[in-house]
Amino acid sequence: MPLHLDTSSPDFAERFTAFLGTKREVSEDVTRAVAEIIAEVRARGDAALIDYSRRFDRIDLAEAGIRVTEAEIDAAMAAADPKTLEALTLAHERIRAHHARQLPSGGRYVDALGVELGHRWTPVDAVGLYVPGGTAAYPSSVLMNAVPARVAGVGRLAMVVPAPDGVLNPLVLAAARLAGVDEVYRIGGAQAVAALAYGTPTVAPVAKIVGPGNAYVAAAKRQVFGTVGIDMIAGPSEVLVIADGEQNPDWIAADLLAQAEHDTAAQSILFTDSPALASAVEAAVERQLATLPRRDIASASWAEFGLIVHLTALAEAPALVDRIAPEHLEILTADCEELAAQIRHAGAIFLGAHTPEAIGDYVGGSNHVLPTARSARFSSGLGVLDFMKRTSILKCGPEQLRALGPAAIAIGEAEGLGAHARSVAIRLNL
Amino acid sequence: MPLHLDTSSPDFAERFTAFLGTKREVSEDVTRAVAEIIAEVRARGDAALIDYSRRFDRIDLAEAGIRVTEAEIDAAMAAADPKTLEALTLAHERIRAHHARQLPSGGRYVDALGVELGHRWTPVDAVGLYVPGGTAAYPSSVLMNAVPARVAGVGRLAMVVPAPDGVLNPLVLAAARLAGVDEVYRIGGAQAVAALAYGTPTVAPVAKIVGPGNAYVAAAKRQVFGTVGIDMIAGPSEVLVIADGEQNPDWIAADLLAQAEHDTAAQSILFTDSPALASAVEAAVERQLATLPRRDIASASWAEFGLIVHLTALAEAPALVDRIAPEHLEILTADCEELAAQIRHAGAIFLGAHTPEAIGDYVGGSNHVLPTARSARFSSGLGVLDFMKRTSILKCGPEQLRALGPAAIAIGEAEGLGAHARSVAIRLNL
Repeated sequence: MPLHLDTSSPDFAERFTAFLGTKREVSEDVTRAVAEIIAEVRARGDAALIDYSRRFDRIDLAEAGIRVTEAEIDAAMAAADPKTLEALTLAHERIRAHHARQLPSGGRYVDALGVELGHRWTPVDAVGLYVPGGTAAYPSSVLMNAVPARVAGVGRLAMVVPAPDGVLNPLVLAAARLAGVDEVYRIGGAQAVAALAYGTPTVAPVAKIVGPGNAYVAAAKRQVFGTVGIDMIAGPSEVLVIADGEQNPDWIAADLLAQAEHDTAAQSILFTDSPALASAVEAAVERQLATLPRRDIASASWAEFGLIVHLTALAEAPALVDRIAPEHLEILTADCEELAAQIRHAGAIFLGAHTPEAIGDYVGGSNHVLPTARSARFSSGLGVLDFMKRTSILKCGPEQLRALGPAAIAIGEAEGLGAHARSVAIRLNL
Repeated sequence: MPLHLDTSSPDFAERFTAFLGTKREVSEDVTRAVAEIIAEVRARGDAALIDYSRRFDRIDLAEAGIRVTEAEIDAAMAAADPKTLEALTLAHERIRAHHARQLPSGGRYVDALGVELGHRWTPVDAVGLYVPGGTAAYPSSVLMNAVPARVAGVGRLAMVVPAPDGVLNPLVLAAARLAGVDEVYRIGGAQAVAALAYGTPTVAPVAKIVGPGNAYVAAAKRQVFGTVGIDMIAGPSEVLVIADGEQNPDWIAADLLAQAEHDTAAQSILFTDSPALASAVEAAVERQLATLPRRDIASASWAEFGLIVHLTALAEAPALVDRIAPEHLEILTADCEELAAQIRHAGAIFLGAHTPEAIGDYVGGSNHVLPTARSARFSSGLGVLDFMKRTSILKCGPEQLRALGPAAIAIGEAEGLGAHARSVAIRLNL
């Protein structure tokens, strides 16, 4: 049974706040273990990768090779179901086309004093892409992480993916090929993050690491941050559906379950002003669970973290949604555009009854790597800008320096930075 | 004596690589101490802030108050030297005008299938600004951190600054007033970061924390990352000056010292193809050091971390500069534009002999919070986008869902996510 909250209850505010504070992940403290793994990889390079892979993935990389060969990727492409490959190719093309529109333009301008200001965007030279192994190895995630990097103009794209018991998901390799990944290594965990950050004889270091992973991977990214850039730390996924009474409960139930099936820590939330719809959705969830392949996961997520908020009016939704700042927000109401315009914090908004989140997960073209766990309050989904950086440019001539110099000297002196002041004064013969 | 390297030496490549690996900071492991401080602030709120401030800053906040009052800020404004205040006002206006040009525009478009895609930018609701106390309390840094947040439209801007022995820099308070900071708290260290991230009865929590600090502050930001957003972890500052033989050695010496005076761990680098200029700059540095208020700091930095690279030709510079990825790059050459165009990794570029970095530090208008320690390879200076986030938007109608649905179903099934596939199929009666 999901939690039910009613905005008209006297204790709603208190219970909603308590709900926001619910932890969905057990935070394992792996800081020290990860620090040790990183130190080992820095000290012993490939030998450490081989040791850890033997221990954690039960694979002998001295034999299998740390790097996945082109022949292995060729074989994965050949083995892939043509229909799936065609779908991934469509997804790739749509993701590429959408992200191409995110390419920023630099520019320079001259202000009223004649000072030239501007900036220039350039791609990161080399990027590492972490792909989880096992059940969470999704080809769509490879596309979503690799394509924006490629569009940004990243020169070298290296992917790491653990091969537990030697097994790699062939579709992950196929997606890497489609997306133009340059190198694939069958390593995972904190050791793979360390290899990407510091390099080993086999794995050249990168400048930025992106992609989701378990607690060890997240802790490793946190620890190498600064030496390399990292993307956000991903948590379990969530969806919030706002629906009015006119919607199809079966569709909404399917959308809630599509989120819940990811992980027992995933979260599916329904906001509605229609008690009848709420009941119908709950019944539909139970019905659909019965025939769902991942019903154990989905039903645990729904029972433990599911939420139905009963609204007196849909107008109550925006303020509550902003407090949750959901990763995914579906709005299935007659006035979905008006509601969307009032919401400030969400990773992605899916408008109308014919835009299930799964379209955005796969083939819409927008990115499915989105801020989780309320971080849409301060961060954005993955995009081309995450693989570029801005260099600012400033140019003064003698006149501009004369105009601005005295103020710079005054501030330098006030801050006790005499050489700052002098570097200006000396040019003005002051 | 700074280090001298010559690109024509047979061991140049090796020595340059060794130079790149030089650590300028002793990395203190304060992880555990910081974790404890954060836990205390979460558990005991204001009482923990009062205890830590008594211990670390020798101030009794139970008496002085955690929050700095408007009357105190009024008094700081009244006490400030009018010339300095005027200079800060000019700086504020120029920073505001420049950053206003960084405001992004969202937008939607309809693709060939009729799918609507787009995104929307919104400001972060509340931002915390960390300002170091003591000697590194710079009013210019307050402007550089606060103004982009204000331009982005951040609703609430809270500043923390430690008051060792009860002392606050009045110019820091004045800059906070000029920049429109809403709240100022006299707390610092990991405890201030914890208060901003988790809130206390006095300090409401924020969604993002920016600003430089010592090892404790950096570790605290790393630990609260995820709960709130953070900016980059700042290291000691650096400048790289490329100069040809026609330049004024006194000007260049002043620029190198302006960097060196920040911190004994700061770094000043000269690249030149003129041995005569290199000698003249070295002599000028020694001469200018004699009369520099912060000569002890500057001379230690120059002796320990200074570098002069002797080039056979200026054309060698770009590849070497990119490996250093300097925070600040000054180009004083006849062809400065051509050289700048070939360089990919730098926080900010200052073009020509009349653009000393100090102009950019204070009144140029561009931001002086820039990526240090080679992180310009993967990150950018602070800007308006750091205080905003992007929500992506996707909208399909029935036709678009029919067009894209089969591919989404194929990928969902291939990934073993049956509910994903079903959420599309159920709408298409498949």
